[in-house]
Amino acid sequence: MSPSSFSHVGIAVRNIEDALPFYRHLEPEARVEIEAVPDLKVRVAKIHLSNACLELIEPQAGETAITRFLEKRGEGIHHICLGVPDVDAATKDLLARGYHPVFPQAMDGSGNTRVNFLSPKDTHGVLIEINSPRP
Amino acid sequence: MSPSSFSHVGIAVRNIEDALPFYRHLEPEARVEIEAVPDLKVRVAKIHLSNACLELIEPQAGETAITRFLEKRGEGIHHICLGVPDVDAATKDLLARGYHPVFPQAMDGSGNTRVNFLSPKDTHGVLIEINSPRP
Repeated sequence: MSPSSFSHVGIAVRNIEDALPFYRHLEPEARVEIEAVPDLKVRVAKIHLSNACLELIEPQAGETAITRFLEKRGEGIHHICLGVPDVDAATKDLLARGYHPVFPQAMDGSGNTRVNFLSPKDTHGVLIEINSPRP
Repeated sequence: MSPSSFSHVGIAVRNIEDALPFYRHLEPEARVEIEAVPDLKVRVAKIHLSNACLELIEPQAGETAITRFLEKRGEGIHHICLGVPDVDAATKDLLARGYHPVFPQAMDGSGNTRVNFLSPKDTHGVLIEINSPRP
């Protein structure tokens, strides 16, 4: 086993087109992908740095989690995502140690991954997504 | 020129020893370094993932920025740091485009780096540190 990789930081924004010019100016060489994720009712702009991504997340009609975050805190960092070796094993291990993963069992996520989330109560205030490739 | 690398995410905590057990359980293979940074009046725990760091930041007596953040928002993600190819050139370029780097000229930072910070007003709510090795 090796330590996790840092996958991405998720940044809640009201409007991707308003937020993107700054990031394009800061990172002119970065590849940017914009995609709709209808299952989660968001649009995402992935700014590919050399070793990780910045993801701008814009809620669409009917989305609740990012929308509430924006109402309460304004735009800013919403979560970080770590690529762990085995999210199912990590979930079991954290449960056994008395922590509170959001899902008692990891779930299938987008892009052929398994995912879970760790409660900010356990992580000292940080919403952490963990994922690994599906076996 | 290539895109920046993701260097670290800075997480404000009240006490490193209270926060560290969770991260050691999540990342048992990660090397952890704890160091005092007297110039900034903080202690830092660097959790080395395979491609980037999580940095837990604990303010010491007399520190103001992290202390205010903790009072206002509680523990959580304070900033992200990107390793840019040339922080002096990036500062000039952002100023020319009408953005507001915290320092009009990049400053010498710790560990033989040059650093600057980008205002959350420009970045849609994210305090971004940028650094590069000193020439």
